[in-house]
Amino acid sequence: KIVEYIEMLLYKEKDLVGKNILITAGPTREDIDPVRFITNRSTGKMGYAIAKAARDRGANVTLITGPTDLTPPSFIDVVNVYSAEDMYRAVSDRFDKCDVLIMSAAVADYRPKEKSNIKIKKSDDDLKIELTRNKDILYEIKEKKSRQVVIGFAAETNDVLENATKKIKKKNLDYIIANDVSQKDSGFGTDTNTIKIIDKFGNVKDYPNMSKLDVAHTILNLLVK
Amino acid sequence: KIVEYIEMLLYKEKDLVGKNILITAGPTREDIDPVRFITNRSTGKMGYAIAKAARDRGANVTLITGPTDLTPPSFIDVVNVYSAEDMYRAVSDRFDKCDVLIMSAAVADYRPKEKSNIKIKKSDDDLKIELTRNKDILYEIKEKKSRQVVIGFAAETNDVLENATKKIKKKNLDYIIANDVSQKDSGFGTDTNTIKIIDKFGNVKDYPNMSKLDVAHTILNLLVK
Repeated sequence: KIVEYIEMLLYKEKDLVGKNILITAGPTREDIDPVRFITNRSTGKMGYAIAKAARDRGANVTLITGPTDLTPPSFIDVVNVYSAEDMYRAVSDRFDKCDVLIMSAAVADYRPKEKSNIKIKKSDDDLKIELTRNKDILYEIKEKKSRQVVIGFAAETNDVLENATKKIKKKNLDYIIANDVSQKDSGFGTDTNTIKIIDKFGNVKDYPNMSKLDVAHTILNLLVK
Repeated sequence: KIVEYIEMLLYKEKDLVGKNILITAGPTREDIDPVRFITNRSTGKMGYAIAKAARDRGANVTLITGPTDLTPPSFIDVVNVYSAEDMYRAVSDRFDKCDVLIMSAAVADYRPKEKSNIKIKKSDDDLKIELTRNKDILYEIKEKKSRQVVIGFAAETNDVLENATKKIKKKNLDYIIANDVSQKDSGFGTDTNTIKIIDKFGNVKDYPNMSKLDVAHTILNLLVK
């Protein structure tokens, strides 16, 4: 903790002082029953890196995180959530007071329609799980947007750019960070990422493969130019 | 690693020397698409504790493990698997040569009938996932059983004893370790466990809440009495 404190003090560029930055990270879990759940490959590394970088640059950071195995950076506020519904509530409760929302969590799009309170017994038959849509956090929040800069992520495996551009419009985002999670050294669980940054005017900028901490600083640079 | 080596040497009761013990641990993951999957709350702690305890007592240990965040004990063979199908193959390839199989993994009973090769786009509609049964590893393997002692686990939330007794018969097990995963301090992710050991004659023995390492030694004691 002392090492982290010194690291933070030594970081020279304090260009985010006074900014309240809300960052989401990790996957969510959608319970089928008390034992089984649906989740995704997100490990939280990207969001945690952004939280650390923003803290070092002087921002007031709140990290809303799904279940991960990472230790969150010190000297920030951490809110632990489990499901997409928890995540929605945690973000919307805090959105009004933030200046920037960076939504790097991989929030589940669907949850089981019904959660069984006891472990579903297996049978020889096939099984159907009915899924229903979770609220789209960025879409829901766009009505409340005033001064906030809102940055989304698009983890795609195909038509990365096309899907990202659609998302910007639909959710009224300022930027979207698109990455092709089917590429090696990019996306879930890796320590590096290859991203494209797309702004609301449709400008696209490609970046080389970088560490997630370098990607974090690149994203935060958008807030100070 | 040196510490672990000394720990292993110092463990006095070498009562499992020469025994080939196959242990499974952790959850499995059943892919829906390249991003989403179904899994369960198993963290692998119980199986890893059994592997460590068996190694310390002199056994030749092979640990077949689903995705976990644990570091496996040193000086044992480790086989990493992902899905229930991988786990089935890994176990059946090694069953003939083992003396003991301890099946502590929480193997998924079901997998999505079809895995999409691209991330399924969300739509406003509900979604149905069709699931199909995975092979029941212990049930499949029972035909091959000769000298082997086979120990299963039953992670239940209700009717724990009744369900465990059924499993013993159906899968021709020597013992089943039953635990109620809905209890606090027992089951998934905890460092302790409260178990009942049921043998094939229907005898049930209750144990108090113990560390998972103590539970591991209790289970291994079944092999030397």
